[in-house]
Amino acid sequence: MKTINIAILGCGTVGTGVARLLLKNGDILRDRIGCELHLKYVADIDTHTDRGLDLQPGVMIPDAAMAIADPTVDIVVETIGGEGIAKRLILDAIETGKPVVTANKALLAKHGNALVAAAGKRGVDLAYEASVGGCMPIIKTIRESLVGNRISAMTGILNGTCNYILSKISDEGIIFETALAEAQEKGYAEADPTLDVDGLDAAHKLAILSALAFGMRINFDDVYIEGISKITPLDIEFASQFGYCIKLLAIAKFNGRQVEARVHPTMIPFDNLLSNVNGTLNAISVSADAAGDILLYGRGAGMMPTASAVVSDIADLARNLIANGCGRVPIMGFQGDRIRPMAVMPMDEIVTHYYFRFDAMDRPGVLATIAGVLGKYAISLKYVHQKGRKTNGSVPVVMLTHHAREADVNRALSEIGALDVVAGRPILIRIEDENGQE
Amino acid sequence: MKTINIAILGCGTVGTGVARLLLKNGDILRDRIGCELHLKYVADIDTHTDRGLDLQPGVMIPDAAMAIADPTVDIVVETIGGEGIAKRLILDAIETGKPVVTANKALLAKHGNALVAAAGKRGVDLAYEASVGGCMPIIKTIRESLVGNRISAMTGILNGTCNYILSKISDEGIIFETALAEAQEKGYAEADPTLDVDGLDAAHKLAILSALAFGMRINFDDVYIEGISKITPLDIEFASQFGYCIKLLAIAKFNGRQVEARVHPTMIPFDNLLSNVNGTLNAISVSADAAGDILLYGRGAGMMPTASAVVSDIADLARNLIANGCGRVPIMGFQGDRIRPMAVMPMDEIVTHYYFRFDAMDRPGVLATIAGVLGKYAISLKYVHQKGRKTNGSVPVVMLTHHAREADVNRALSEIGALDVVAGRPILIRIEDENGQE
Repeated sequence: MKTINIAILGCGTVGTGVARLLLKNGDILRDRIGCELHLKYVADIDTHTDRGLDLQPGVMIPDAAMAIADPTVDIVVETIGGEGIAKRLILDAIETGKPVVTANKALLAKHGNALVAAAGKRGVDLAYEASVGGCMPIIKTIRESLVGNRISAMTGILNGTCNYILSKISDEGIIFETALAEAQEKGYAEADPTLDVDGLDAAHKLAILSALAFGMRINFDDVYIEGISKITPLDIEFASQFGYCIKLLAIAKFNGRQVEARVHPTMIPFDNLLSNVNGTLNAISVSADAAGDILLYGRGAGMMPTASAVVSDIADLARNLIANGCGRVPIMGFQGDRIRPMAVMPMDEIVTHYYFRFDAMDRPGVLATIAGVLGKYAISLKYVHQKGRKTNGSVPVVMLTHHAREADVNRALSEIGALDVVAGRPILIRIEDENGQE
Repeated sequence: MKTINIAILGCGTVGTGVARLLLKNGDILRDRIGCELHLKYVADIDTHTDRGLDLQPGVMIPDAAMAIADPTVDIVVETIGGEGIAKRLILDAIETGKPVVTANKALLAKHGNALVAAAGKRGVDLAYEASVGGCMPIIKTIRESLVGNRISAMTGILNGTCNYILSKISDEGIIFETALAEAQEKGYAEADPTLDVDGLDAAHKLAILSALAFGMRINFDDVYIEGISKITPLDIEFASQFGYCIKLLAIAKFNGRQVEARVHPTMIPFDNLLSNVNGTLNAISVSADAAGDILLYGRGAGMMPTASAVVSDIADLARNLIANGCGRVPIMGFQGDRIRPMAVMPMDEIVTHYYFRFDAMDRPGVLATIAGVLGKYAISLKYVHQKGRKTNGSVPVVMLTHHAREADVNRALSEIGALDVVAGRPILIRIEDENGQE
């Protein structure tokens, strides 16, 4: 039986999970792949911490470069994270002619085009299933299962931390800060939660998926990003009265000319399956011309779910090595010469439904004034809702719009926010509701 | 650019969809795969019906054997259906050394082992993503994405006709026969609906999935099958009072020694994502040791969703042909010599939760008599519910059990059914509720 030698670079949570899975399920991997996935090296500067791995002597080494340079190593797995040393080591491995598996979404989102170009030039595979959606096979589904489809839209809950926090706010009526603190306590949020709660992590993933689905270059800088820190129990309560819940959605659409790519808190109807995705779970729905809508759901993070995806990549690359089929599926889903830069729709041009909440002074004529400004910008209303609860002399006025253009909405809200009769900044939450009337 | 020549055998709904998709999305297939998927033949005895396909002269032919024999044909797609001529043509294609794509679940469930053996012997690929779950990539997910996992359970809604009918009964309180008639009217059920409503179609699919997930031979005859024709609005109403809905589930479990494989109407809690899968949609949840639970959801049937899956198989085989990587992923997910017959748990030994409904005479002591029989067979009750509504002097008595053994349940129900104070056959519906206490 052929042996494929694996080197894992970085033995943090994910690296440890990958090593553990290769050891624990080595038998079933052999039975399925028909080769031995041999854990040759685990490279980490910290070789002393006990990670509960039963490694043979000589496997744990402090020097990643040595693992890459060893000519017997067949596949390199980067589980270091970050954009510095991880990038250099991946490029080194590619240069040495070794296929690479990585789970590093931030790196791919920002430097993916360079890495893909390097791998393409050297003719080695670069696999990254674990970079998006943990164990959900979304990369494989887009690259292989939907190969015969034109993909028009993707809508995903791609950050478990945000989903946990929003579920908490929603279920318990607590404020964002309290929910975040609980998430940190349970280990679902980092000490510095910025990457998650500000929407950056979801945006990294969306940049990768958009490229794959639409055949474009990875385009992280053009993803519109808005986090969840301004979501209040009050808005969640109003949403629920309209039949919506609030999720941090990563949304990508392609109309044949321009791509939309945006991450922001979004209201979705309760009968959308995504609204039932709670806690730290992830899900993504893909709309394709032949398949229709398909949805994947599962654990988007965590040691073993992520390891499951990394090991599936290792298996794919091992199968390619055995069959001499490197490059069998192009790294970004499209043949290199078919990947093009593509126009990204400026956020100002987005057309969608909106939820507004204004803190309006409880005086006659206020509603007419607000509605007048909206009318001036051609924003027509579907629902207006004024609730009694007076706080500091103001009452929340809630409105849902028909389709409106983001630029018009921003101008109108600026003007309304500047009115004497409106306290504080108006709240805006976008709505995705395909069944909502125009 | 390399050209891969495709022959489609059988131009019914699925065959037409595949031809349409290859023609319509040929450009994007080229961009992704890097080769031309050329539709060389569509073979059907009926060459005259206009299927709305813009075929070049000479593509539509009456003779499948000619397409198989043509040495320029690279991949054969069987979309005839049934177990007779389809089987012979697949074997002929394999014998000629051509890889085959099929969507034929009945054939695979009953004769899959022979087809797999023939393909293995001749060294050609046999692909069948479309045989289970339409466009949901469940075959690829099990064979490739979960390759590093031990799979312990699968729970699926795999028949859209049954799901549509149960959704109808549930939403509208109509009886089975009315819902079936509506499904037939809308084209969601065949004139002879037996294969669907009796659970056979779901069982065909489950037999394929169990083999793939657990590394066993396909074992259709040992799948326990119960259809949906006895499901009444009354039982659905009671289920709903307990927080359950009723779905036709295909359930497979593996405890490391024995496999459970059963298809039957099942109560599941409302917070199970599968309970939100309505209408003709399909979904399947897979429990695996590293990944945890993942769920796929999408259209399980229909012309274009099925074509999407068939075309993904064609692309996979084309990639294998280009890279000379035939057999890259073993047909049944495991290396041939690792596939074993495996013990299937007799239905009598299944342990699960149960719902019973008895039509009990409205007389003192009846409940005690029924409970006494259940106690004799060590069946302990979680809820007992007696509703007023008297019909013909009897009242429905509903019970939910703790874990109980199927053999005990059957013996108890036979004894209870024979009591003078109980009218008609007791109703039994199994419950899958992992959060239900023992």
